[in-house]
Amino acid sequence: MSEVTFTKCVERWCAFEVSCPGKTEGNPFADYTITGTFSGRHENVTVEGFYDGGGVYRVRFMPSFTGEYSFSIDGSFGQPAEGFFTVLPASEDNHGPVRVNGFHLEYEDGKPFFPVGTTCYAWTAQAPETQQKTLETLKEGYFNKVRMCVFPKHYLHNLHEPLNYPYEGKPCDFNGEITGNFMSLMQVQPGNDWDFTRFNPVHFQTLEERVRQLLEMGIEADIILFHAYDRWGFSRMAADQNETYLRYVIARLSAYRNVWWSMANEYDLLRHLTNSDWERMAEVVCSCDRYTHLRGIHNCFAHYDHTRPWVTHCSIQREDVYKCAEQVDEFRIRYKKPVILDEIGYEGNIDQGWGNLSGKELLRRFWEATCRGGYATHGETYLGRGTLWWSHGGELFGESHPRIKFLRDEVLEKIPGRGLKRSHLAWDEVSATIDTLIPTGFYLIYYGFFRPSFRDFLFDDGYDYQAELIDTWEMTICDMGVHKGAFRIEMPGKEFMAIRLTRV
Amino acid sequence: MSEVTFTKCVERWCAFEVSCPGKTEGNPFADYTITGTFSGRHENVTVEGFYDGGGVYRVRFMPSFTGEYSFSIDGSFGQPAEGFFTVLPASEDNHGPVRVNGFHLEYEDGKPFFPVGTTCYAWTAQAPETQQKTLETLKEGYFNKVRMCVFPKHYLHNLHEPLNYPYEGKPCDFNGEITGNFMSLMQVQPGNDWDFTRFNPVHFQTLEERVRQLLEMGIEADIILFHAYDRWGFSRMAADQNETYLRYVIARLSAYRNVWWSMANEYDLLRHLTNSDWERMAEVVCSCDRYTHLRGIHNCFAHYDHTRPWVTHCSIQREDVYKCAEQVDEFRIRYKKPVILDEIGYEGNIDQGWGNLSGKELLRRFWEATCRGGYATHGETYLGRGTLWWSHGGELFGESHPRIKFLRDEVLEKIPGRGLKRSHLAWDEVSATIDTLIPTGFYLIYYGFFRPSFRDFLFDDGYDYQAELIDTWEMTICDMGVHKGAFRIEMPGKEFMAIRLTRV
Repeated sequence: MSEVTFTKCVERWCAFEVSCPGKTEGNPFADYTITGTFSGRHENVTVEGFYDGGGVYRVRFMPSFTGEYSFSIDGSFGQPAEGFFTVLPASEDNHGPVRVNGFHLEYEDGKPFFPVGTTCYAWTAQAPETQQKTLETLKEGYFNKVRMCVFPKHYLHNLHEPLNYPYEGKPCDFNGEITGNFMSLMQVQPGNDWDFTRFNPVHFQTLEERVRQLLEMGIEADIILFHAYDRWGFSRMAADQNETYLRYVIARLSAYRNVWWSMANEYDLLRHLTNSDWERMAEVVCSCDRYTHLRGIHNCFAHYDHTRPWVTHCSIQREDVYKCAEQVDEFRIRYKKPVILDEIGYEGNIDQGWGNLSGKELLRRFWEATCRGGYATHGETYLGRGTLWWSHGGELFGESHPRIKFLRDEVLEKIPGRGLKRSHLAWDEVSATIDTLIPTGFYLIYYGFFRPSFRDFLFDDGYDYQAELIDTWEMTICDMGVHKGAFRIEMPGKEFMAIRLTRV
Repeated sequence: MSEVTFTKCVERWCAFEVSCPGKTEGNPFADYTITGTFSGRHENVTVEGFYDGGGVYRVRFMPSFTGEYSFSIDGSFGQPAEGFFTVLPASEDNHGPVRVNGFHLEYEDGKPFFPVGTTCYAWTAQAPETQQKTLETLKEGYFNKVRMCVFPKHYLHNLHEPLNYPYEGKPCDFNGEITGNFMSLMQVQPGNDWDFTRFNPVHFQTLEERVRQLLEMGIEADIILFHAYDRWGFSRMAADQNETYLRYVIARLSAYRNVWWSMANEYDLLRHLTNSDWERMAEVVCSCDRYTHLRGIHNCFAHYDHTRPWVTHCSIQREDVYKCAEQVDEFRIRYKKPVILDEIGYEGNIDQGWGNLSGKELLRRFWEATCRGGYATHGETYLGRGTLWWSHGGELFGESHPRIKFLRDEVLEKIPGRGLKRSHLAWDEVSATIDTLIPTGFYLIYYGFFRPSFRDFLFDDGYDYQAELIDTWEMTICDMGVHKGAFRIEMPGKEFMAIRLTRV
């Protein structure tokens, strides 16, 4: 049997792992436990490890500080182990996990994080070449967050068997056809035969590898723990099986700094689960995840109560056909937390209204959310042009993603502050300013579908303002000169324009 | 002094006029009265006449029935007159005044009237050649209703003096410049000198001639009696002056069957008038107008209470930047009257958000209103291309008006019924059916900004349905075959499409 192995050095906010040989008799997932305690000058953390198959147990830890650490591993199967390691300062691209700061987010090192996400629900369940394509697409830097499921997905346009399954066992036979409505679509089919006490390490190794690759690209992995799009029964496990599952996922993934926990996608479609079920499962996440990764829960119809203390940010699906990003104002007031619109319709052409917006409309929703001090998430569902990004990943065929990147790179990342809030200048525009108590002399004004050929401004503060005209669709920023007092900005009478005013 | 004159024959629902010589001493507008009583087999109507300048008094009457009528005129200034005339059946294009039928409108002869209006507030105050252009544009048949003011208009883009004034007197000096905000814009300037007891007949003769010309084109004149866009003081008259004005306008115009009374445009901007003022003035209209022309009152912010018995239909300005036509559902429930969205933003490019929508967005709002069983009104405000139609009339430069005509001619006028109501088939579309209690097997389904590449239908009624695909922007209607039960309609994945299903 091999030795206990670990590295001598690890970077702050990176995963430090101790792997140990251990017993394989019986059910190693269920019959034994392993924990590790990690101690540095500023922290002393005990976490659960997990069985990774092949007689190997692993304990992972993410140090929050630099300096000398010691660890001790204790397994119910035999010899304890201990050792020392050094935590080095974070390298340039490592800013730590993302934390909440008021209505906004920032990395643990204080760098603001402006979430610009996408949904790619079942990308890690697709053929390896599709996963590779997804990684290549993500490498283009359109997004800094991906919403993705642990369990395979059974839903429209995604009826094929996944690459692998999270448990040992055998899936139901499925003829690949769907009859009836959505609700009947999301029903567990007969013929599944799973051992919910034995995980399939390959499934989780794949997921884990993808999370690591995202981390390397600076992309947050918004891990969806439960969802209802299921024919195999993973959405219908018993309470203790859910808890075992959560502990396993957390033991494996929580040492990766880019992990967020999304308790569910459309939690309310898991109709057999009550609010107390969700609260109990959230408690498991809170107690097992020693790094307090961000936690959210995403709705189909009614919101979950995002004021619950364990909810770090609102993860919201639009409730109204017409107004969605426009509701950021009221969500901020109601929940007093960062508002992330994780589903506002996808750019695409499928039959469903949630997946056939134009790129322009999706981009409009991004800008609306932004200028109200919220954040939005992308998705793409084009039929007949390859895979559907929203579920499978692959390539992007739409028009919105480069413009979303422009919004992020040229506007959000360049605001002179940590986030935006709405500033009510006029009824026929959405204007944002820096989200501080003290006025900062910065305005980002978005005109949406309005097409003014000029706008008049009146500032009584005596300051000079640098004016810029932003074409959010053409991705141009045009210097409109420095102005003070009463001034007029000429505009092209086009949709989707914005004006940026910065005090100089 | 000339004789009493009148015609021997008049068409049903046309204006019959008796003109009489009368006294000119003193103030003929105030010092004398004239009334006429008109009697046929089915009606006996007494109306006020009016002084039209040059010693001529006129009494007008619109007969509602055919056959032999007698009349007697009684003036406070001298000899009474009487006579006989014959009311002939209405000619082919004369369907009578428009009446309310539930949530919809129809002419008095029972022909459905689907209001497709436009706003041309101050067109009768413009130079004669502009008025001529307006008439030529209207002749193209884009609209069947025009909202237009009696009083001249002082507002952005409309600061020049009107062609003439409604009263004898002298206007204030105005330098043509505006300072300050909207509210200060709508203030009476000093230097006006009017005699509110003496009307200027030329002003009303022009207006009247335009109303007659609209009538000949089959266009309803939605006459706006009061508005706040005023520097001359016509919005600030005393209560008795308002009443005198109303009686004069009604005496002159009410015999024209195409007249509607709009008590005000943006009644709530006339801040000195209370609800009881409006109620009292509405009472004057109700008692003096013997033909019960349609009556509405249009808001800027909060709606007037459209449940008031004198209000025949809701004349509504949108209250929300994003949702406007979408609110027809709730307005129908609240008011139980026809819902006419008389201001939902204009196609144009001015700086103001109410006047810089794209043609596509304005058309979208028309379709939304239509499929919810409401009606919408057009307006156009293009700067730099001639006059602004919304205020001045002239030519149309936009893209929406031909598509609005298409909606009216090819869709509304062809529904197998008297009006539409919403039919809730799916969340991601707006579907309409005939507004009857008994299902009719007709569906008009609008997809707005959604871009489905197909839609599935399921009818369990065993009937065949003729399917048509309507491109609301390209103005095409494509036969998609006859279907029953479960069927799929292929679509082009474009915005602004509709499907029409008609049971065969």
